[in-house]
Amino acid sequence: MNSVIDLLTRHRSIRKFKPDPIPGDQLQAIIASAQMASTSSSVQAYTIIAATDPALKKELARLAGNQAYVEQCGLFLVFCADLNRLRKATEQSGEVFHQNTESFLVASMDAALAAQNAAIAAESLGLGICYIGGIRNNPDGVAEALKLPELVYPVFGMCVGVPDQEPSLRPRLPQTAVLHENGYQSDRSDEGVRRYDETTRKYYEERTGGKQSITWSRSMADKYRQPVRAHLKPFLEKQGFRLE
Amino acid sequence: MNSVIDLLTRHRSIRKFKPDPIPGDQLQAIIASAQMASTSSSVQAYTIIAATDPALKKELARLAGNQAYVEQCGLFLVFCADLNRLRKATEQSGEVFHQNTESFLVASMDAALAAQNAAIAAESLGLGICYIGGIRNNPDGVAEALKLPELVYPVFGMCVGVPDQEPSLRPRLPQTAVLHENGYQSDRSDEGVRRYDETTRKYYEERTGGKQSITWSRSMADKYRQPVRAHLKPFLEKQGFRLE
Repeated sequence: MNSVIDLLTRHRSIRKFKPDPIPGDQLQAIIASAQMASTSSSVQAYTIIAATDPALKKELARLAGNQAYVEQCGLFLVFCADLNRLRKATEQSGEVFHQNTESFLVASMDAALAAQNAAIAAESLGLGICYIGGIRNNPDGVAEALKLPELVYPVFGMCVGVPDQEPSLRPRLPQTAVLHENGYQSDRSDEGVRRYDETTRKYYEERTGGKQSITWSRSMADKYRQPVRAHLKPFLEKQGFRLE
Repeated sequence: MNSVIDLLTRHRSIRKFKPDPIPGDQLQAIIASAQMASTSSSVQAYTIIAATDPALKKELARLAGNQAYVEQCGLFLVFCADLNRLRKATEQSGEVFHQNTESFLVASMDAALAAQNAAIAAESLGLGICYIGGIRNNPDGVAEALKLPELVYPVFGMCVGVPDQEPSLRPRLPQTAVLHENGYQSDRSDEGVRRYDETTRKYYEERTGGKQSITWSRSMADKYRQPVRAHLKPFLEKQGFRLE
């Protein structure tokens, strides 16, 4: 429909990068784009930490579950939700700072909206990106490595760099499954999942030369049949967040 | 630096719209863009509800705190975090579904990344957007109006439409305040806030012809000196989310 929509709909995560660093003016443009994303009541409750030190990148790669591309990418960004700055602003104005699940969510959302703008800016420059949720595998270790103060937590990381692979697009749920009109329509979702299970089964068969044949539903069951990152809430509380 | 970055850095929220509806092919492209955003392990844990019924839009405008533009915009989207679809997929595969704070966060993030792609796609088509966090003012009412099942909650709304105003860009924190290198740097944040307080004081003075003069820090203190949306956690638990 237009070149921006072409860019958005051609996204795929890149997990193999050339070692080229990201020039300063590109980083500046990526962060400027991130900052102009919408922010709830202008709170801008996030901080972005660029890991440029090779030893730090190596440590973050290890903490994220030995993901080599965290170390190899030209630029590794950690998007942190940050209520610390807001607490300071509130207390230095002579008020008591209140926080709860809502402010935790707002800070996490602000970080996410900024990150997605950063991702698109990077891709518009011909770079590739990959979100790293694995940064929450060992959030204590990450918080220590990045010297995060109270009320700051690492939401996710993002590899940015010059792509050294050309992966195919990964199919998504049918649009009918995720877009409902005037109210939630379970039947649309169910029917879409049935079709998508077929699509994903074929997709994995083709990608593995017939060796693997797994539907989306089955891979979701494999993921959620046990608790995932159950340490997150205790970590957040230790970091000072009150999830009330 | 390029036209995409120009688009990203020219964003401002639009709160006055012409009544024109959004053509079907534009809606289709906006949602297709949303769906190609990154998603944690392909979980795609969100559902987008397009409110097209005028009575429903009116009710959502009321629930969001009488925000007239919710009713007036050509298209009102509600981005919902959705673990319901994942629970079904897991249970229909014969497994027990586990959820916690991590899966709540993943679903909320997935909704946010999709939403930001939708926002950019819409803006690339010359449309304006405004996130509506006010949808969480009365989430029970919204969940009822949209017939949301268990494990689905409205993260935020988004007005989309033909702009009928040309607001100026709202200044952001200095880049030095939000971008740190190799570790959290409180001094950078503090110094940035000091400069930003000056910027925002001047910005509001100019915008109000000298009548209002408030810094960012003071407006944050005014926001956080009392609990904001303390009902959110009980609502989420009632909706079936286990924030453990």
